[in-house]
Amino acid sequence: MRYVLDIAYDGTGFAGWQRQPNAHTVQAELEAALSTALRQQTSCTGAGRTDAGVHARQLIVHFDHPEALPPRFFHSLNALLPATVSVNGLYRTADPDFHSRFHAVRRAYIYQIIRKKSPFYRDQATWVRHELDLAAMQAAAAVLPEYEDFASFCKAHGAHETTLCRMDAAFWQEEGDLLCFHIAANRFLRGMVRAIVGTLLEVGRGRRDIADFRRVIEARDRRAAGANAPPQGLFLTEVSYPEGSLIPLL
Amino acid sequence: MRYVLDIAYDGTGFAGWQRQPNAHTVQAELEAALSTALRQQTSCTGAGRTDAGVHARQLIVHFDHPEALPPRFFHSLNALLPATVSVNGLYRTADPDFHSRFHAVRRAYIYQIIRKKSPFYRDQATWVRHELDLAAMQAAAAVLPEYEDFASFCKAHGAHETTLCRMDAAFWQEEGDLLCFHIAANRFLRGMVRAIVGTLLEVGRGRRDIADFRRVIEARDRRAAGANAPPQGLFLTEVSYPEGSLIPLL
Repeated sequence: MRYVLDIAYDGTGFAGWQRQPNAHTVQAELEAALSTALRQQTSCTGAGRTDAGVHARQLIVHFDHPEALPPRFFHSLNALLPATVSVNGLYRTADPDFHSRFHAVRRAYIYQIIRKKSPFYRDQATWVRHELDLAAMQAAAAVLPEYEDFASFCKAHGAHETTLCRMDAAFWQEEGDLLCFHIAANRFLRGMVRAIVGTLLEVGRGRRDIADFRRVIEARDRRAAGANAPPQGLFLTEVSYPEGSLIPLL
Repeated sequence: MRYVLDIAYDGTGFAGWQRQPNAHTVQAELEAALSTALRQQTSCTGAGRTDAGVHARQLIVHFDHPEALPPRFFHSLNALLPATVSVNGLYRTADPDFHSRFHAVRRAYIYQIIRKKSPFYRDQATWVRHELDLAAMQAAAAVLPEYEDFASFCKAHGAHETTLCRMDAAFWQEEGDLLCFHIAANRFLRGMVRAIVGTLLEVGRGRRDIADFRRVIEARDRRAAGANAPPQGLFLTEVSYPEGSLIPLL
């Protein structure tokens, strides 16, 4: 049987999602907890990767187990996982071949900027000390969904088959002390959100105007864009599937 | 000249506010930053202490410096302090004898409970896995301001001259995933908020009723109350002074 988990994690102390030799990763922690709870070696597959220091409020992960899950499996998993990782949902799949990565139809991210020093957001937002022109950043963000090819924001050795994405949201929102950039698309390229935010921050500082921002996108060359914004402001917030794919078990 | 700072800190890695030999404390960090920024050994006095692991969204602190503050003092201080401590306000005093502790007229705290595991609140809320009867906890909280003597919630060796406090607020509020206990009084005894929350949680779990909660208060004996709630849920949120005491310098 294929099962699905909805997990969250604080990426601060992790070398990202993906299992790697000699590195502390979320996938390794989750597989260790699953293997203990299920009393057999169990591997899992996530809907996507996150880089070191990047967080997830919702990452969807699937794993296989030949039997029904043991009683209190959900609670055991949360007790076995470190405080930095939580399981928020448990599902079975309508389609036995459901795949968390290949079947995802939409992903959403938030990037958090904080404009004053705050001890409570030190690992979950990027403190920007310069003045930012929010209206200019908003106008630049609004042009993003007009485009399909985001090669300018794609890490060079990302080894993507294509640099095309269908973006359906890209906007800034003030939430208390935070300035949050919301972005959603069917897929994202490696490093894409951090490169977009880094370039939007150059617009916010008056170093680029909208025409220049469009030229960056149209260049289809990573060297045209700004530096990556730091990882700690980035959260994967949502991974979506066709309706009915996942059947709640709780 | 006497100056006043409004600071915030994440208490997680600190052995509390107060300077102690061989311990990492907020006061020691702040005095080190002040001494560097002012180019002379500078000590400071806080409006109160917080225990190890307890946070402050606002602690008021005063210090003396014979001259005008150097240019960009506020920014230097934030750059010199670790990411876990921020300075949010800078004032001079109307009264040259202003004292952050003795002249404070009101203090407010929040205690945060979270009812599901969350990696983002692991150091800033207490995860309570049992069902809680919020209405019962609210009813019990509401009786607190009827009393003046809080000896039952006072750490035995607190060495307080008196255990009397004038409490003007004590209530629970749901805020997203959090259950927040708000409490304010002219003064607080050592360990008081954590002992009150620990006892209210016993009410929430059905182990005490309101009559029993009143008997705890009326016993004036720490042994009558529940265990202290853990430190990481507690925030000092506000310290207030008579109007006009502090004159903003920013």
